[in-house]
Amino acid sequence: MSKVKVSRKAHFNAAHRLFRKDWSDEKNTSIFGKCSNPNYHGHNYELIVSVSGKIDPETGFVMDMKILKDLIKIEVEETLDHKNLNIEVEEFKSLNPTAENIAVFIFNKLRPHIALDKELEITLYETPRNFVMYSG
Amino acid sequence: MSKVKVSRKAHFNAAHRLFRKDWSDEKNTSIFGKCSNPNYHGHNYELIVSVSGKIDPETGFVMDMKILKDLIKIEVEETLDHKNLNIEVEEFKSLNPTAENIAVFIFNKLRPHIALDKELEITLYETPRNFVMYSG
Amino acid sequence: MSKVKVSRKAHFNAAHRLFRKDWSDEKNTSIFGKCSNPNYHGHNYELIVSVSGKIDPETGFVMDMKILKDLIKIEVEETLDHKNLNIEVEEFKSLNPTAENIAVFIFNKLRPHIALDKELEITLYETPRNFVMYSG
Amino acid sequence: MSKVKVSRKAHFNAAHRLFRKDWSDEKNTSIFGKCSNPNYHGHNYELIVSVSGKIDPETGFVMDMKILKDLIKIEVEETLDHKNLNIEVEEFKSLNPTAENIAVFIFNKLRPHIALDKELEITLYETPRNFVMYSG
Amino acid sequence: MSKVKVSRKAHFNAAHRLFRKDWSDEKNTSIFGKCSNPNYHGHNYELIVSVSGKIDPETGFVMDMKILKDLIKIEVEETLDHKNLNIEVEEFKSLNPTAENIAVFIFNKLRPHIALDKELEITLYETPRNFVMYSG
Amino acid sequence: MSKVKVSRKAHFNAAHRLFRKDWSDEKNTSIFGKCSNPNYHGHNYELIVSVSGKIDPETGFVMDMKILKDLIKIEVEETLDHKNLNIEVEEFKSLNPTAENIAVFIFNKLRPHIALDKELEITLYETPRNFVMYSG
Repeated sequence: MSKVKVSRKAHFNAAHRLFRKDWSDEKNTSIFGKCSNPNYHGHNYELIVSVSGKIDPETGFVMDMKILKDLIKIEVEETLDHKNLNIEVEEFKSLNPTAENIAVFIFNKLRPHIALDKELEITLYETPRNFVMYSG
Repeated sequence: MSKVKVSRKAHFNAAHRLFRKDWSDEKNTSIFGKCSNPNYHGHNYELIVSVSGKIDPETGFVMDMKILKDLIKIEVEETLDHKNLNIEVEEFKSLNPTAENIAVFIFNKLRPHIALDKELEITLYETPRNFVMYSG
Repeated sequence: MSKVKVSRKAHFNAAHRLFRKDWSDEKNTSIFGKCSNPNYHGHNYELIVSVSGKIDPETGFVMDMKILKDLIKIEVEETLDHKNLNIEVEEFKSLNPTAENIAVFIFNKLRPHIALDKELEITLYETPRNFVMYSG
Repeated sequence: MSKVKVSRKAHFNAAHRLFRKDWSDEKNTSIFGKCSNPNYHGHNYELIVSVSGKIDPETGFVMDMKILKDLIKIEVEETLDHKNLNIEVEEFKSLNPTAENIAVFIFNKLRPHIALDKELEITLYETPRNFVMYSG
Repeated sequence: MSKVKVSRKAHFNAAHRLFRKDWSDEKNTSIFGKCSNPNYHGHNYELIVSVSGKIDPETGFVMDMKILKDLIKIEVEETLDHKNLNIEVEEFKSLNPTAENIAVFIFNKLRPHIALDKELEITLYETPRNFVMYSG
Repeated sequence: MSKVKVSRKAHFNAAHRLFRKDWSDEKNTSIFGKCSNPNYHGHNYELIVSVSGKIDPETGFVMDMKILKDLIKIEVEETLDHKNLNIEVEEFKSLNPTAENIAVFIFNKLRPHIALDKELEITLYETPRNFVMYSG
């Protein structure tokens, strides 16, 4: 049996700013532009979590979408939704919360909860026009 | 000649929080929930600006979309994009930046620039699932 | 203060068939086509519930979206989601579950829970290409 | 019984240019910009045709969507799809094919085929960001 | 010449329920939840069929989209559209019609009609939030 | 550090026709159908440009989206937007402007401007229902 990739969409809203503490304001602005606004801006992040693996012949599922939905809720939404990423999420106190880094963060949060014989892929839309994909 | 409504989509990203200074933290949380997070959260606001009026028989336009696009850029995007609404937009220092109030604010910014014989309507998506409409 | 219309999206999946018990199979098929399949077919119904009224100057809300979201869940989703409309929803045992009739049904379910000084509008997508709107 | 508005989406692709024969090239370019390119450009036009009226108590329909779909196909798609609007559509040989004028043209094509006790509304997307609405 | 992947969207509506005949009602409900409703529910399935291969230097096509569109219509839409998958589709009388199994079924229906030097990929949206991908 | 794929959406409108100069009108029509209309038709092309590579640990970016946005504007939009592809784009005077060939053309325009250790992928929507993907 070949592999199927199953995907579930979710979303969260958050505030962030892009900057490095060890750079001057001038350098932060020259590299990150208005995304470096010290008062923060924000996004509706749209998230797609994809899991690839063989279909379980008993259920016809690669993975139960209800379980995946709950997992995303507990591991991702409760950590990131309606939060200020720079202030309230431990990892982003020192790591710049770019879409790339947030996608890797979400991957690392979910990976331990996905069976080892399955692959995980994270797609994260920062805006309807900018998005990133990470699969470990 | 009957009226035609022409619409132009735009967008901006911003941080905000919902709260009233004259309420306690407890009351703000009980009314506004996680939207009242003191560290802010944010959205990709999707905006539709609609202008209704008669078609100019010379051009075939109700209003030149390029002019409307530039007007939205100057009056709305430059004021709100990548901003913290509560801190950086004068009106929202004392007014709660709900989607309703932001739509009225945008209407009031654009109305003086639209010809008097034309009607203006603002549709504002705070998230893909929540949106408001205001036409004066 | 002029009125603002606030809208909330929701969705539910259901099976149905279009037919009248008092018509022959031939007449049902000639009027309703493949939508009259006796074994049912189904849709992902996308729902937009809109409430129009004045902005409450205290909260900046026309209506709290969390309350509207919960109301849609209790009154609409719990009644219609993952149901066979013809068999499991009392009203549609005798009434043809067209998109038009479902929209009126949803309006009537929600109207008693919306303040009398506010207007209610129901938009229901039966497919991404067919949708209906009803406001009483 | 109050009125319900039923809507059907359709689409067509076409080439056009915006210009007036009685204007100089300079004036056409100054008013219509790159939309006036003499070699034409084109769009995927997305169309929504809406019909408002009372629900027929026998069928539960305001109007049979299959009939509306076929009507749009015959009256609109066969006239406009994969056409050069300025060259191949009689009306636009002398009338500027702006979105506004195309919407009025579609309304006039469909209106004679819609029952007199029903209202017709045309929404036409020229691009995902620009659209117009006309209802007679 | 490197490979290009060309994709065509289509859709169909169907009713189904998730269950195994050899399981008790209790077990079906505990595993499949409300998706196991014996009276069925349904979906608007959105389908993307992708074919990868070299561009034919004569036509500039990997595959003629009109041919692919007709193939999807004959092989997929006529078999699944407005059907009850459990009752009316032979394969799903004994196989659970999960999105995963439907995607594999569509792949197997189309594969014999696609040239051997081309690859086939099926993406199937069961809802706007749940989708699966299969490529053999 | 594993690779992340970052994507940016853009769009352009253009006219084109599908045909070969060395074929008769009859043969062009039999192969390309109404897409071969000598008077041209057109599309709103939606473009996704994706760049894959390692995250720069200093910025948290694979590639600065502002730089990618400007690159797409200069290399793609200025060349193709509001143009007649067959007449005004040198490559398509002799090459059939199918979606496949346009995607390869865009890839070749952008590839020299993307760092050698990064991969480039082009996704091009000719209509909301037809799209192609090319990655060299």
